[in-house]
Amino acid sequence: MKILLTLSYLGTDFCGYQIQPRGRTVQGELNRAARELFGFDCDITGCSRTDTGVHANTFCATVTQKGTGAIETAIDISKIPTAMNAHLPEDVAVRSAEWVNDEFHPRYDVKYKEYVYKIYNFYARNPMESGRSWHIPHVYNDDALEKMKKAASYFVGKHDFSAFMASGSNVESTVRDIKYARIEKKGDIIEFTVAADGFLYNMVRILTGTLVSVAQGKISPDAIPDIILSKDRSRAGMTAPAEGLYLNNVVYN
Amino acid sequence: MKILLTLSYLGTDFCGYQIQPRGRTVQGELNRAARELFGFDCDITGCSRTDTGVHANTFCATVTQKGTGAIETAIDISKIPTAMNAHLPEDVAVRSAEWVNDEFHPRYDVKYKEYVYKIYNFYARNPMESGRSWHIPHVYNDDALEKMKKAASYFVGKHDFSAFMASGSNVESTVRDIKYARIEKKGDIIEFTVAADGFLYNMVRILTGTLVSVAQGKISPDAIPDIILSKDRSRAGMTAPAEGLYLNNVVYN
Repeated sequence: MKILLTLSYLGTDFCGYQIQPRGRTVQGELNRAARELFGFDCDITGCSRTDTGVHANTFCATVTQKGTGAIETAIDISKIPTAMNAHLPEDVAVRSAEWVNDEFHPRYDVKYKEYVYKIYNFYARNPMESGRSWHIPHVYNDDALEKMKKAASYFVGKHDFSAFMASGSNVESTVRDIKYARIEKKGDIIEFTVAADGFLYNMVRILTGTLVSVAQGKISPDAIPDIILSKDRSRAGMTAPAEGLYLNNVVYN
Repeated sequence: MKILLTLSYLGTDFCGYQIQPRGRTVQGELNRAARELFGFDCDITGCSRTDTGVHANTFCATVTQKGTGAIETAIDISKIPTAMNAHLPEDVAVRSAEWVNDEFHPRYDVKYKEYVYKIYNFYARNPMESGRSWHIPHVYNDDALEKMKKAASYFVGKHDFSAFMASGSNVESTVRDIKYARIEKKGDIIEFTVAADGFLYNMVRILTGTLVSVAQGKISPDAIPDIILSKDRSRAGMTAPAEGLYLNNVVYN
C-alpha cells in the first residue's frame, strides 16, 4: 500500500514543486518531513509540477519507502496529516491522508485537474492579494467580462493547444481535452477556472493572458477558434504571471 | 484642507501601526512615502493603533504638512493612491484618498469601528491562512457555534468592559457601546464581527478568547452578563493571538 497525501501550499517562497539541487522546493520539504516522521528515506511522487510562485489549494502526492513502491507504518492514517505538519514549514501542509493500492499512480491516474487563475482588478493594489493574484489596475466593465466569458467558452473541448504552450516545450501530444472553462467576478477578483485531462507547459497562464487580451479589445472572442487552429503561439496572449495561479483540484479515475 | 487616506495593510511584518524608534511600522512607512511624494515632511494621523501582527482591511489616516495641520499639493486627489503606492512596500497600500476639512480628526471623529476576528477551524492547518487567522484544530459543532452566537449577543450594548481589557491599561473610561457582535461560519472559517464606538486595549482579542472558552464549554453563554458586571479580567477568556484580527471598517460622524 501507498499513502496518498492531499496538500496545500503557498508557492511564493518555493522554487516550484519539483526537487532541485539548489533552491527550496515543496517536494524537498515533503521528502525531509517524511524521513523525519517515518524514520527512513521516502519517495514522494506528485500529481504534477508547479512552477516558482504557483500555489496549490489541492495537490496530491504519494509517499512510499525509498525504492520499494510501498510503505508500512504503525502510525494511524488519521494522524498522518497532523504528524507530517509538525515537520513541515508554515507555507505547506498536509490536509488529509489515505491508503491507496500499490498500482495507484498520482500522475498517470489523474482523470482531470482544475486550475484557478485570480486577477485582482481594482485601480489600487491590495496588500492582502500581494503574491496571490495578478493585479490589473484597469478595471474591466461588464462588456469586457462578457467577452472574456465568450472567449473562455471556445477553449472547451478536445483541441491541439500548441498555440497556448510555452515555446521550446517537448511533449508527445499537444492535444488536451478541456472539460470546462469559466470566468466569474467575485468582488474585485476575476476568477478563471479551467479543468482538463492535462495541461501543456504554461498553458493556463497563456490562456489567462489571452483572456486579458480579449478584455483589452486586442483579440476578438470569436478569433479564439482560429487561434487554436493556427497552432501559432505568437497569436495568443502573453503568459500571465505565476502568482495568480492555483492548482485547485485533482480528480482521479 | 487635509488629505484623508483609506489604507489596507497586512500586519504580519509590521511592529504595529504606530511609529517607533526601532522596528518597521505602518506609520513609519506612510511618513516616508508621503515625504517622497510631496517633497516635504508630513504628519500622519491614524484612526487607531494596531498591535504587531494585526491587519487592516480599512484604516484611515490624514496627511498634512508637518506642523501646519493642512496640506497643499498640485497632485490630483484621484492620483494620490497610485502615486503613494509607488512609494510603499507590498504589505501596505492606499486604497482611496479624499479632501477633508481642517477640523476633521481621523481618531476623534470616529462614530464606530468594526473589527473582524478570523478563526481557522479545521483539524489540519492551512498554508493560505498562515498569519491570517487563529488556527484552532478542534472543530466546533453546531451546538458550540450556537453557544458562541448567544454569548456574542450579550456583548451588545453600553457596558463597562473592564473584564475584557488587558490588565495595566490606563484609560479615563472603560465604558464602550457595542453596536453589533455576530458569529458566522464561512467554510472552515469562523468570523467574529464586532463594532463599537471605541475599544479598550486588547478588547476584541479578549472577547474572541472568551467566545472560544464558550465553544469549549468552559464558560456558559449565560454567564457573560455576570462576567461583564464583575469587571474581573480573570473571569473572561484568554487573549486571542494578534494574527486573526482585522480592523475592517471605520465609520465617521
